[in-house]
Amino acid sequence: MLNIGLLGAGRIGITHAKAVLGVPNAKIAAVYDPVDAAADAAVALTGAKRATVAEIMNDANIGAVIIATPTDLHADQIELAARAGKAIFCEKPVDLSAERVRACLKVVEETGTKLMVGFNRRFDPSFARVHAEIRAGNVGDVELVQITSRDPGAPPVDYIKRSGGLFRDMMIHDFDMARFLLGEEITEVFATGAVLTDPAIKETGDVDTATATLRTASGKMAVITNSRRATYGYDQRVEVHGSKGMVQAENHRATSVTIANGDGYTTEPLLDFFMQRYADAYRFELTTFCNMLNGENVAFPSGHDGLKALELADAAVQSLKTGAAVKPGA
Amino acid sequence: MLNIGLLGAGRIGITHAKAVLGVPNAKIAAVYDPVDAAADAAVALTGAKRATVAEIMNDANIGAVIIATPTDLHADQIELAARAGKAIFCEKPVDLSAERVRACLKVVEETGTKLMVGFNRRFDPSFARVHAEIRAGNVGDVELVQITSRDPGAPPVDYIKRSGGLFRDMMIHDFDMARFLLGEEITEVFATGAVLTDPAIKETGDVDTATATLRTASGKMAVITNSRRATYGYDQRVEVHGSKGMVQAENHRATSVTIANGDGYTTEPLLDFFMQRYADAYRFELTTFCNMLNGENVAFPSGHDGLKALELADAAVQSLKTGAAVKPGA
Amino acid sequence: MLNIGLLGAGRIGITHAKAVLGVPNAKIAAVYDPVDAAADAAVALTGAKRATVAEIMNDANIGAVIIATPTDLHADQIELAARAGKAIFCEKPVDLSAERVRACLKVVEETGTKLMVGFNRRFDPSFARVHAEIRAGNVGDVELVQITSRDPGAPPVDYIKRSGGLFRDMMIHDFDMARFLLGEEITEVFATGAVLTDPAIKETGDVDTATATLRTASGKMAVITNSRRATYGYDQRVEVHGSKGMVQAENHRATSVTIANGDGYTTEPLLDFFMQRYADAYRFELTTFCNMLNGENVAFPSGHDGLKALELADAAVQSLKTGAAVKPGA
Amino acid sequence: MLNIGLLGAGRIGITHAKAVLGVPNAKIAAVYDPVDAAADAAVALTGAKRATVAEIMNDANIGAVIIATPTDLHADQIELAARAGKAIFCEKPVDLSAERVRACLKVVEETGTKLMVGFNRRFDPSFARVHAEIRAGNVGDVELVQITSRDPGAPPVDYIKRSGGLFRDMMIHDFDMARFLLGEEITEVFATGAVLTDPAIKETGDVDTATATLRTASGKMAVITNSRRATYGYDQRVEVHGSKGMVQAENHRATSVTIANGDGYTTEPLLDFFMQRYADAYRFELTTFCNMLNGENVAFPSGHDGLKALELADAAVQSLKTGAAVKPGA
Repeated sequence: MLNIGLLGAGRIGITHAKAVLGVPNAKIAAVYDPVDAAADAAVALTGAKRATVAEIMNDANIGAVIIATPTDLHADQIELAARAGKAIFCEKPVDLSAERVRACLKVVEETGTKLMVGFNRRFDPSFARVHAEIRAGNVGDVELVQITSRDPGAPPVDYIKRSGGLFRDMMIHDFDMARFLLGEEITEVFATGAVLTDPAIKETGDVDTATATLRTASGKMAVITNSRRATYGYDQRVEVHGSKGMVQAENHRATSVTIANGDGYTTEPLLDFFMQRYADAYRFELTTFCNMLNGENVAFPSGHDGLKALELADAAVQSLKTGAAVKPGA
Repeated sequence: MLNIGLLGAGRIGITHAKAVLGVPNAKIAAVYDPVDAAADAAVALTGAKRATVAEIMNDANIGAVIIATPTDLHADQIELAARAGKAIFCEKPVDLSAERVRACLKVVEETGTKLMVGFNRRFDPSFARVHAEIRAGNVGDVELVQITSRDPGAPPVDYIKRSGGLFRDMMIHDFDMARFLLGEEITEVFATGAVLTDPAIKETGDVDTATATLRTASGKMAVITNSRRATYGYDQRVEVHGSKGMVQAENHRATSVTIANGDGYTTEPLLDFFMQRYADAYRFELTTFCNMLNGENVAFPSGHDGLKALELADAAVQSLKTGAAVKPGA
Repeated sequence: MLNIGLLGAGRIGITHAKAVLGVPNAKIAAVYDPVDAAADAAVALTGAKRATVAEIMNDANIGAVIIATPTDLHADQIELAARAGKAIFCEKPVDLSAERVRACLKVVEETGTKLMVGFNRRFDPSFARVHAEIRAGNVGDVELVQITSRDPGAPPVDYIKRSGGLFRDMMIHDFDMARFLLGEEITEVFATGAVLTDPAIKETGDVDTATATLRTASGKMAVITNSRRATYGYDQRVEVHGSKGMVQAENHRATSVTIANGDGYTTEPLLDFFMQRYADAYRFELTTFCNMLNGENVAFPSGHDGLKALELADAAVQSLKTGAAVKPGA
Repeated sequence: MLNIGLLGAGRIGITHAKAVLGVPNAKIAAVYDPVDAAADAAVALTGAKRATVAEIMNDANIGAVIIATPTDLHADQIELAARAGKAIFCEKPVDLSAERVRACLKVVEETGTKLMVGFNRRFDPSFARVHAEIRAGNVGDVELVQITSRDPGAPPVDYIKRSGGLFRDMMIHDFDMARFLLGEEITEVFATGAVLTDPAIKETGDVDTATATLRTASGKMAVITNSRRATYGYDQRVEVHGSKGMVQAENHRATSVTIANGDGYTTEPLLDFFMQRYADAYRFELTTFCNMLNGENVAFPSGHDGLKALELADAAVQSLKTGAAVKPGA
């Protein structure tokens, strides 16, 4: 039995705890959250005991932790857990500073810790299938990746200020997806951006609409478009062109219903946001983490992947300032 | 050069004349229509001379006629043309009386005349492709044909009275399509019907909504649904199930545009009616007729096919009265 | 807390037990299954105790039973539970004999028992949405219902022999769906059928391919097509035409992926069978049952609905024999 | 009657001549082509006389010319026709040198000539509908345009050498489409490119796979992706996001047929190339030209539009060299 300590019992922590409930041979054994109501809910759901971070780190029966606390605690808690010999699942990002991430990953490496970073979209059945088709050679050599990612609405300005901005908070998922699908490191990033949906965002220095164009050493390309606005739901699509053909994942809907009348044929809007669209992905993500710890040989997004995506986001921010392509990680 | 006499220069006659304009080695050489304006328009379009039926039949340079006159003239004009040695394209139906059709086809047979009946849908690129996939064996042995056919609105009650009713006027196309796709003669017809769209239709003794279930000797089945009402455009679909799979033809639209907002994703209504939806089909139909006369070995709907479809319509009418399955042609 | 006794811990019983796990204020308290392995698995899953049917019926703390035993036990167990004052969820069918069902429902009625019958498809999100659109008036008055239902493959001949045949075992779901969507009782049934997929089925006296045409007093119609064969997955579609428009539910797939190359654009086959396609439906079905017992005012398929569907199946069997439309329940 | 002189009777010249055949009150009156076979075919099709360029320019009965000659003749022939007082339809591009185009347009302006440039895609029914939806305000303020344009295969290397390269020959259509849909001038162009399909293209100095990101003064963006390879047909899509929603035009196919079996659901590849996909667009384009000359108040792509698209292409070439965003027309 794999005993897991849950750090952070907010919405995403609870989502992960529910996923663990469905995994045989794994359970949430201890819950840490400074907010009583959150901790109590997680305890009621899982039957785990409530504990402090230190108690979890010192508990020899606990083999792994799920870090779902606020972003600024991630790197410290990863280091604590790594030194305590726990395997780690950490929500993205590891940190908003690439330098801090590098220092943290050094601890992970030195301690030989298994660290999985929460790039949940890799586990979405449709995107995972796209990846599998590519790896099976069914589109030939990849030439061009196109990713469309639009949120139904912008988060509160307060959140945006703390988030690191659109490139580090939102497009970082697409940067990871681009790396995942290209299968080759990105050597050049060009980004554009503007505030088109809400002037309040302008005051934070961030953008709400953006594009990024990525290039690899061999000339493969990826184009990403992002917006904080989509009136028709949470728009999440990828399309990959290769020498033998094309593979694409279309959006998901709650039902397959169409209604037709004199106005035309209408299907419902898309699933509203990430908790709905990626419900399966979150489940498969934690199942993979547990299976990996139970000895299964599975691929998973690592701390290195987290760092690479952050470097791409940093390069995009820099490109936006300079109007020129930027080499990531430089 | 194939010289053709056009009998009847109404909307459908003009459609056929335009199709002939696009065929090399064929032309409309003479036009008959008692209405001056109609005849004049056809003459202006084609450069043909205006003529009487007798003049056309007696003109040795005219090798074929297109009969697009009112239904009650079809059989007589087929017989005239057959005896005059002309090849014949005749709009469906040959006649509303199966007995009259049989007599007419006897003349056609005795004179060795080539007679093509205007089941235009066989020439629709999508339906023709469905047929080709079946004949190529790509769905295996056919088991079940499903045909959905709905008009955007009912014709005037005056038309309905003269039309022979929904089964002989509208569903007759679907009976022909069922035979075309089943590839085996139908031995049993069951029909239901009701007046659901317009009470005025009830007074004509006709129905406006109907179904028919067909069965062949080997147990293959076809299900047809018809309605005189479709608020979303002219609904024309076929679907064929076989031992190896399924092939279907979806509706056609004028554009491929979708618009999305908080109400969902909306595509435009279907093409409005048969002149739009079957524009290509009408063109390919006449091209096939001309090609056949120019010696090409092509399949085409014959007078026999016209008779068979009418027998199925008659059986449906009879089934509607009796509530039991009826053997067609009996 | 609603304590539930589970009768029958086979595949479908376990599915229902899992659904109950996700319902707050409800739990499986006791499990009956004569097969040790089945009972043990259900006990392990739910934490319930193992018990005999009599113990469950006599346990005053148990307020409801889920009957998921073989069909021939359903009616007896419904009567036992009704007399013991338990609310009942029973898998369809109540019995294969309409007479037996009527006797059983008399007991249900006399004892004032709440009985829900497992027509799971009413709880499928897509079909439920179709129903909701109709009830909201968005397609106007219903005129025609079209239901396509095809299994990926035939069950073993042994199963077919005990099943009551295609109309009572398979199409019974579609008869219920037709009643659900038409919103008016069916007064006439016409059916056709044949053995097209496997000659072994012929020897059982059953068919493997069938159609049914239904008619209500006001002239509304429904057309159902069924087959035991669909090479492309479990085909489950409904389409409803009304005076104002059309609403349809298309098939479901595991992913939204399309791959394109010189052969065209290909999407994956459909979900394989009912446990996959109706996973959500089974969950919502049991949730509805529990919510109803916890006082919520919800619609659910009753014993009366079970009887009506069986009468339609019996009428279809009779129609197949006679070649004429049959009045159900007569 | 509008008499038109046709300069150049190659494939595209014949396409335009056929379009004119369908326009009332307009006809091809004279044909120039130095190749006898080409000129003869055009004469046979249209009934026009064969003539030299000078004869056409001097013929007072000819009110307009269609220039469908090789690109390097366009600017000179535009100037000739402008000075001769003819209205002009000219295939794109006006010239491969922006400087030459500017000089040519000066003559057009000074002579008050009506000049339409052949950006045929503006007349595609689907793209025209997208434009109309935007202009009707149905997607609100435009924020982002995404254009995917992929040829089924690369042209011969000889053609590529003369073509001006991918940006001036192929993506120029997308630059025009981006301007058409954005409704605001583009102030910044960033481009990437690579040779991924055929090493022979590398030797010409051109690329075969490319992206461009465009930006307007107000922050609207457009992203274009191009490839000389698409195994599944001629891929032509646009998608426009605005404050109120999204509008997209999907690809076109010859039929609406889908075939399903154990491999999934397959629809046919796309129409093969521009002559098929844009057949309607070519027809509507020339109809618009004739209607405009017959006094109708219609919008059309002008010489100025031709120049602007070329400036964007030049900027893209420059950006590819420098790795930085470039201001077009600078």
